[in-house]
Amino acid sequence: MQNFECDYLEGAHPLIMERLAATNMEKTPGYTEDCYCEEARRKIRQACGCPDAEVYFLVGGTQTNATVIDALLRPYEGVVATETGHINQHEAGAIEAGGHKVLPVPHREGKMEAGMLSRYLKNFFADEAYAHMVNPGMVYLSHPTEYGTLYTRSELEAIAAVCKEYRLPLFLDGARLGYGLAAEETDVTLETIASVCDVFYIGGTKVGALFGEAVVFPRPGIVKQFFTIVKRHGALLAKGRLLGIQFDTLFTDGLYLDISRHAIKMAARLRQALTERGYTFFIRPQTNQLFVSLPMEKVDELSRKVRFSVWEKHENHTAVVRFATSWATRPEDIDELISLL
Amino acid sequence: MQNFECDYLEGAHPLIMERLAATNMEKTPGYTEDCYCEEARRKIRQACGCPDAEVYFLVGGTQTNATVIDALLRPYEGVVATETGHINQHEAGAIEAGGHKVLPVPHREGKMEAGMLSRYLKNFFADEAYAHMVNPGMVYLSHPTEYGTLYTRSELEAIAAVCKEYRLPLFLDGARLGYGLAAEETDVTLETIASVCDVFYIGGTKVGALFGEAVVFPRPGIVKQFFTIVKRHGALLAKGRLLGIQFDTLFTDGLYLDISRHAIKMAARLRQALTERGYTFFIRPQTNQLFVSLPMEKVDELSRKVRFSVWEKHENHTAVVRFATSWATRPEDIDELISLL
Amino acid sequence: MQNFECDYLEGAHPLIMERLAATNMEKTPGYTEDCYCEEARRKIRQACGCPDAEVYFLVGGTQTNATVIDALLRPYEGVVATETGHINQHEAGAIEAGGHKVLPVPHREGKMEAGMLSRYLKNFFADEAYAHMVNPGMVYLSHPTEYGTLYTRSELEAIAAVCKEYRLPLFLDGARLGYGLAAEETDVTLETIASVCDVFYIGGTKVGALFGEAVVFPRPGIVKQFFTIVKRHGALLAKGRLLGIQFDTLFTDGLYLDISRHAIKMAARLRQALTERGYTFFIRPQTNQLFVSLPMEKVDELSRKVRFSVWEKHENHTAVVRFATSWATRPEDIDELISLL
Amino acid sequence: MQNFECDYLEGAHPLIMERLAATNMEKTPGYTEDCYCEEARRKIRQACGCPDAEVYFLVGGTQTNATVIDALLRPYEGVVATETGHINQHEAGAIEAGGHKVLPVPHREGKMEAGMLSRYLKNFFADEAYAHMVNPGMVYLSHPTEYGTLYTRSELEAIAAVCKEYRLPLFLDGARLGYGLAAEETDVTLETIASVCDVFYIGGTKVGALFGEAVVFPRPGIVKQFFTIVKRHGALLAKGRLLGIQFDTLFTDGLYLDISRHAIKMAARLRQALTERGYTFFIRPQTNQLFVSLPMEKVDELSRKVRFSVWEKHENHTAVVRFATSWATRPEDIDELISLL
Repeated sequence: MQNFECDYLEGAHPLIMERLAATNMEKTPGYTEDCYCEEARRKIRQACGCPDAEVYFLVGGTQTNATVIDALLRPYEGVVATETGHINQHEAGAIEAGGHKVLPVPHREGKMEAGMLSRYLKNFFADEAYAHMVNPGMVYLSHPTEYGTLYTRSELEAIAAVCKEYRLPLFLDGARLGYGLAAEETDVTLETIASVCDVFYIGGTKVGALFGEAVVFPRPGIVKQFFTIVKRHGALLAKGRLLGIQFDTLFTDGLYLDISRHAIKMAARLRQALTERGYTFFIRPQTNQLFVSLPMEKVDELSRKVRFSVWEKHENHTAVVRFATSWATRPEDIDELISLL
Repeated sequence: MQNFECDYLEGAHPLIMERLAATNMEKTPGYTEDCYCEEARRKIRQACGCPDAEVYFLVGGTQTNATVIDALLRPYEGVVATETGHINQHEAGAIEAGGHKVLPVPHREGKMEAGMLSRYLKNFFADEAYAHMVNPGMVYLSHPTEYGTLYTRSELEAIAAVCKEYRLPLFLDGARLGYGLAAEETDVTLETIASVCDVFYIGGTKVGALFGEAVVFPRPGIVKQFFTIVKRHGALLAKGRLLGIQFDTLFTDGLYLDISRHAIKMAARLRQALTERGYTFFIRPQTNQLFVSLPMEKVDELSRKVRFSVWEKHENHTAVVRFATSWATRPEDIDELISLL
Repeated sequence: MQNFECDYLEGAHPLIMERLAATNMEKTPGYTEDCYCEEARRKIRQACGCPDAEVYFLVGGTQTNATVIDALLRPYEGVVATETGHINQHEAGAIEAGGHKVLPVPHREGKMEAGMLSRYLKNFFADEAYAHMVNPGMVYLSHPTEYGTLYTRSELEAIAAVCKEYRLPLFLDGARLGYGLAAEETDVTLETIASVCDVFYIGGTKVGALFGEAVVFPRPGIVKQFFTIVKRHGALLAKGRLLGIQFDTLFTDGLYLDISRHAIKMAARLRQALTERGYTFFIRPQTNQLFVSLPMEKVDELSRKVRFSVWEKHENHTAVVRFATSWATRPEDIDELISLL
Repeated sequence: MQNFECDYLEGAHPLIMERLAATNMEKTPGYTEDCYCEEARRKIRQACGCPDAEVYFLVGGTQTNATVIDALLRPYEGVVATETGHINQHEAGAIEAGGHKVLPVPHREGKMEAGMLSRYLKNFFADEAYAHMVNPGMVYLSHPTEYGTLYTRSELEAIAAVCKEYRLPLFLDGARLGYGLAAEETDVTLETIASVCDVFYIGGTKVGALFGEAVVFPRPGIVKQFFTIVKRHGALLAKGRLLGIQFDTLFTDGLYLDISRHAIKMAARLRQALTERGYTFFIRPQTNQLFVSLPMEKVDELSRKVRFSVWEKHENHTAVVRFATSWATRPEDIDELISLL
C-alpha cells in the first residue's frame, strides 16, 4: 500500500548510505569532534555565507528545540511561538521540562505575523504586572511551518526587526528547511535565514538523512558552552561522525537542495492532480505537504487504499488530511496515488 | 487616598495579631509540627466534614499552586486550566519551573465549563498523536475565579464527574475562598468543595491572615510525603506555628466566614452605588471584586482621587477596572469612594 | 521542659511585634514595593557600606538559596559547596529542583579552604572531559557554617580571590549571620562580607524575626529581573511590608547586632559550664551553636530533662548533640540547663 | 596510529550495516512502532527469559539514564549511585536537569556493596530530619562498572534484596553489558540481570551498533506511558526502525555475545602482554577495559606512539591510563600495541 503519511518513512539518501558504509571501520574521536563533522561545518558555513558561524550536530528535532531554547532563555523567560508551533503541540512538554513556558500567539496559516508580534510585545511590557509574568525571551518560528506554508523574505525581515527592537533572539526551526528553500515561489535562501536569525537548524531527518539536525549560530558567541548544554540534554551522539558524514554528504554538490527540489516536484504533480479532480485545499500548498479537506466518508474510503495522515476532524463530518512527499518519493508512487483519488 | 486595588493591602485581623503577640515567646517545634497547627488542622477537618483530611500550611498562593501541581503530576502530564487561570498568567512560570505545561482551555467569565472540558478531553485522547503530547493530568479551577465569579454546586459536580471519568484529580485554588463561601447567591459550602475536589486550599493571605494557605486533601493518601515536596519548593515555614495560630484563629467561632461576609456586604454597597450611577459591569459581580467598564478619560479622572486596578485596556478607549473590598474595608471607606464616583 | 533544639523556637523580638501591630491596618502596595521595604533597604545598604546594593526580601532560607542559585547559574553549571553545606543536605533537593547539581567538596569543621578550592578548580578545568561534566558556576559558603564555625577575614578574602580567578560568583548563606558578626573572636564585619561576596543574605528567621531573609547584591546589575525569578520560585510575599518592617526594625539602632551578641553571651556561659564539667566539644564553639560529644547513655539521660538536637550518632556508642542559644534565650534558661548537666 | 581510547571509535558491525542498507528504502511507521522494533523486542524478551518485558529503544546512554531515572522517581526522591557512577560524573547534570539529586555513596573498585547500601539506607531513615532531605528513591548500578569491574550474581542478589527491603527500584546501566556478560569469570547472565533488576538497558553504542540502548522493564507496568516520557526527553527517534534493525541483528544468532567475547579475548591478550612486561594494573581487569598505573614519563612516551585515555593523574607523578578493546579490535591491532609497550 502506498504511504504518504510523512516525510520520514525511508532511511537515508543512497549517497549517505554509501559513505557510512565506506567509513564504517575508521576510528575517529567521538562527540562530533571528528574530521567529518569539521568538514560538514565548513560546508554549512559556506552555504550560509557565515564564515564564523558555530555549527553543532544533534540527533532529532524535539531535542534540538529543547536544547536551543534552554540555552537561550533565562529562568524567568519563555519562548513566543504560534499556537500551532511544534514546540507548543507535539513535543510532549520538552520545553516545559526545561522550566520554560511556551507563550502562544495567534497564527495565520501556521505563520506568525510581525504586526501581531509587535502588538503582543508592546502590550506585554505595557502591562503593570509584567514582572509577575513569564517574560518573552525569544521568538520561535518554523519554516516551512507545521502547515507547510512559507514566510517571504520580507516577512522574516519584519519579524527580525521586531525581535531586534525588543532584543529577543530569533530561532528558526528548520526541520523541513530544504523543502522551504526548494519551493517554487520562495525568495528565501539559506543566506537569508542566516542573516535574519540568531540561531536556526537545518533539518536532516526529514530531508535525506537517517537522522540529524545541524544547529547554526550565524554569529558566534551567543551561547557559552553549548556543547555541555547539548550533553546535559542527552543530545550528544557518541559516534558523532555519523552526523558529520551525513551533513557533509548533503552539503556536497548541492545534494540537500537537489533532493528537496525533487520532493517539491512530486508535490506539484500531486497538487495538480488533486486540483483537477476538484479537491479543496485546506491551506494553499507551498512545499511538500498538501493539506486537503475531505468529507469523512471519502477519508474512510481512501484510507483503505493508501496511507496518509488525518490532521483535524471537524464537527461537520469533514476532515483535513495530509499527503507528504519527500526526497524519496518516486514518480510512480505519485501516479499510483493519483489513480486512487 | 482611598485604596481598592486589591484585597491584601492591610495586615491581619486584630484577633490574629493578638494571638501572635500572646504566643510570641513560647517555644514550639518548627515546620508546622506544633500544637497550634495541629489544632488548626482539627478545626479545618471539622469545617470540611472530612475527619481524615490531610491539611498542610504553606505561605503563599503561587508557591501553593506550584507545590500541589508538582506533587500530583507525572512528568508527562500537564494541568488543565482556563486561559485566565492564575497559574497560566500571573505566576511567572512557577508551574513550568516544575517541568509542567499549563494546558489552557477557553473560559466563560473566568469559569471552566464541564461540557467544554469533556469535549476537550475526549478530543485529546481521540487524537492519534496524543502520546506525543503533554497529557492532561489534573484539572485546576479557581473559586472564586480571577474575575470574582462563582461556580454553582452543580457546575462543580459536573466538572468533578468529568474528572472522575478521566481519572484526573481536581484541584481548586481557593486563594479567595472565603469570599466565595460568603457570597449571597452561592449554594457552595466548604463541605461541597471537600466532597468534589481531590485537593484544594483555603486562602488566608487575602482573607484575614498576614499570609498563609491551608492545603486540604479531603481523602488522605493521594500524595506520598507531601511534606518533603513542600520543603523542596522552599515553601516550608521554619516557624510553622505562625500559620497554625492564624488558621486556628480563623476557624474559631466562624471568624473566617464572618469576615468574608463583611467584605461581601461592603462590595454589595459599592455595587448598588455603581449601578445607581449607571456604571456598566464588565462581569456581573458575585464576590468582593467588581469589574467595571469605563471610558479611559473617566479612568484617568478617577485615578487622581482613589486607587484601583486597571485590568484590561481595550482598543476602543475603554478600560476594565477593578475595585476590591476585603475583610478590612470599612463602611466609611466605601462611602468615601461612592462620593468620588 | 527547657528547649535548646534550635534558634527558631520563639516568635520575633518584641520591638518587631510592636511595629507589626502598630502598622497592621495601614494599606500599602504589595510584593515588597512599599515604603517600609524601601527604608529597610536604605538601612541595609548603609550597614553594608554599599550605597548601590540591590536588596530583596524573601521568606525563608531554603527558598532563598534555591532562588539565588537559580538566578546565577547557567544550565550547564553547578554550585560548589562543602559536603556539609545546607544546600547539599537539608533542603530536600531544592537546588536540584532548579536543574542544578551541588558540587560537593571536602570541609574542615564545616569550612571550605581556599587552597582546596583552588586545587579542585584547577583539576576540574585540567580534565580533558570537563566539557562533559557539570561546570563549577559559583561558590556557596555558610557563615557561620552548619557547625557554627567562622571564617576569618583573610580566609574569606582568599576564597574570594580564587573565585575571582575563575570568574565564579561567591554566594554567602547568612541564615545565622548575626551570630557570626557578634562572635567574640571574629574580624569579619558586614562590610567585609559585602566586599568579598557577589551576593549574600542576612538571616532574619533565626535572628529575631518571625521570618525573612534579606538578599544583598553589593554591586548592582549581576542578575537581571531578580524580582521575577523570586516570583517564579513562589518566594514573593504578597504583604511584602511584613518583611520590610521586620528588617527596618532589626537595622534600627543596631538591634540586629545587639540581640546577636546576647545569644553569643548566653552561649559563652553555657560553654564555660560545659567545659568546667569536663564535657568534650566536637567542634570548638565560636557562635551560638555548641556541638558536644556525649556517650549515648548520657544522651538518653539528658533528653529526659531538656530538649536538644542529636546531630550525629557514631558507631562507638557516642553521639554529637547540639545546644543552640538565640536572641531569645534568657539567663535563667541557661542556668536551668546548667543545673541539669 | 593505533587507537585504544574507547570502545566507540568505529561504526557498526558489518551485519548491521548490511541490513541497514538492505532495508533503506522501505517505508515503515516511525517512533519505534515498526516491525523491526517489534521483532527486536521479541528476541530481547526471549534472551532475558521475560516474555512480558516492556522494551524501549533509545539513542544514547546519558539520555537513557536521564529518561529512566526521571520516569521512576517522585519529585522528592533521588537516585543512589556510587561516587564514580557515570550519572554522577560525566553526564553534564542530565539527572539534575530532571530535578533529581544523585545521592553518592562510596564504592570499591567502582562497585556498590550491599552492606554499605543497607547501612546507608538504615541510617538515612533513622535520621530525625530525613523528611527534610532528598529521599533515596531508586538505586543505580553500572555493570560493568566505570572501572570495568563486575558484580557477581550473589552481589547483585544481595543489592536487590536491600532494594526490595526498602522498596527501591533497582536500575542497571548496561552501556557495556555485552562485555560483562562475555567476561571469562562471570556467573551473571542476561537472565540474572532481568531477574534482579526492575529496569536495565542493553548497550548497543559500545557493543556493535552505530548507536542505541535497549531499555528493558522485565516486569511490565512499573512506569505508565514511558513512551511519552521518552518523547519529552527528546529521546524518541523519528526513524525508530534504525534501532529495531540494529538490535534485531545483535540478538540474532547470538551476535551480541559473540562480538562481546571477541573484545574480551583481545583484552586478555593485551592483559597478558602487560603483565609479562611488568606493568601494574590499577584495577584487576575483568572486561574490555584495562586500567594501568604508569609513571608520567612513560605516559608521555607511549602517547606519542598510540592513543589511549589518561584516566587520573596522581600527585606522585604517576597516572592511571585506560586501554579499551571492543567488538572491532583486530588481533593485529593488539599485536602492534604490544610491540609498542
